[in-house]
Amino acid sequence: MEKTSTYTFMAEPFHCDFSCRLAWSHLGNHLLNAADFHANERQFGMTQLNPQHQTWVLSRLAIEMDEMPQQYTRFGVTTWIESVVRLFTHRNFRIADAADPQRVYGHGRSVWALIDTRTRQPLHLATLSDGALTRYACPEEECTMAPLSRVKMAAELPLVRTLDTVYSDVDVNGHINSVKYIEHVLNLLPLDWYREHRIKRLDIAYVAESYYGDRLRFYRDDSQEGLIDVRVKRQPADGGEEQEVVRCRLSVE
Amino acid sequence: MEKTSTYTFMAEPFHCDFSCRLAWSHLGNHLLNAADFHANERQFGMTQLNPQHQTWVLSRLAIEMDEMPQQYTRFGVTTWIESVVRLFTHRNFRIADAADPQRVYGHGRSVWALIDTRTRQPLHLATLSDGALTRYACPEEECTMAPLSRVKMAAELPLVRTLDTVYSDVDVNGHINSVKYIEHVLNLLPLDWYREHRIKRLDIAYVAESYYGDRLRFYRDDSQEGLIDVRVKRQPADGGEEQEVVRCRLSVE
Repeated sequence: MEKTSTYTFMAEPFHCDFSCRLAWSHLGNHLLNAADFHANERQFGMTQLNPQHQTWVLSRLAIEMDEMPQQYTRFGVTTWIESVVRLFTHRNFRIADAADPQRVYGHGRSVWALIDTRTRQPLHLATLSDGALTRYACPEEECTMAPLSRVKMAAELPLVRTLDTVYSDVDVNGHINSVKYIEHVLNLLPLDWYREHRIKRLDIAYVAESYYGDRLRFYRDDSQEGLIDVRVKRQPADGGEEQEVVRCRLSVE
Repeated sequence: MEKTSTYTFMAEPFHCDFSCRLAWSHLGNHLLNAADFHANERQFGMTQLNPQHQTWVLSRLAIEMDEMPQQYTRFGVTTWIESVVRLFTHRNFRIADAADPQRVYGHGRSVWALIDTRTRQPLHLATLSDGALTRYACPEEECTMAPLSRVKMAAELPLVRTLDTVYSDVDVNGHINSVKYIEHVLNLLPLDWYREHRIKRLDIAYVAESYYGDRLRFYRDDSQEGLIDVRVKRQPADGGEEQEVVRCRLSVE
């Protein structure tokens, strides 16, 4: 089997925002689907690993777009493993027009860990599925977007929104769904902002998990030109201490 | 071209709820996509009508499911026009396993009007696209689900939630997205409710449009056994009077 695979999606009308272009949260969903399909087809996906009490955990995701696909556009998401280093694997993405793959809309980078669902401990990846992950690593495939960078944020930021988690926030593991954080962060910006600005890149770090019943608190930092940083903290339902769960940086123009 | 068409979708992991089955809001999205694809392919879809200052408006949608597709299942949504009567057209759906179409998961019914986007007036449908809509009507195709019924609700009901509309609620027309209402209504029920109950059928009537900036108020009636009724009202951003926008009935067991 090839090291890279391409999966075709459509910018469906209900997944587009007011500007008739695919919304970032749905694009994120398509990238995570492509990652899942690619891994399952190579025997190291959730389908194979979950019965062995193992699950992939998304640690970081970055997406950089020159242009968002317009409504009804069919686009391909090409994905491959860039590297496997001890406890983490880097997976990249290229988003291009399905009919004309030379027309590239943008790229993505992601970092994943594999954990044992019983102990919650990360697993060494080199030996996974008899080294399958390492065999599929494809560092020669070019990804023209800047590497992932750590989002450093001030300790104290203004609180801009508090949300109670609801049924539709929860994924099959009972955690708040990775894509829903992106949706909630983008909802901090008013519609008028989107009429005058464009998000060029989104970097999101999944620091810890949050659960149904948690209250999510969104803290925002606009102090750097061209950047909007958002920290999400959970306030556990049992009244425990507030804990950072997500850091997100939007590079805007 | 055939009167019916079938479109295949997958119950993607991020579209499934905690029980690993497709969420109702995403199923609703797939049905509306199937309707859109079916109409576009027959020259009376949004693609053809929008440039003529016409747009389809969903008036009512009902979905009845014996079972929800499990994660990764490929299912087909078959759709056809049941009838065209003056200002309204009835469109039905059948949801079945893609590999085994005899295995039917459920059905849907919907009612649509076509409006002139300049005057907001409904248009007579018999003459649309030289009678194309009427030519494709297929009353002989069986839909085994009970007809649409009017949801009658008490005038005064307890207010159970207030939501400010946000960026992701808004569709390409600047209105609150039909699917988002379903998501918001289903979010009124706590996760524990879903562990012990099942929604058999969802009926939703789109009474009026709401807009970005509106505050949505959710009123709930649990007084009838096996039914959960929800009325949604909009409180306009400009401080105008509260107005009913959606009525939704969940038939539960």
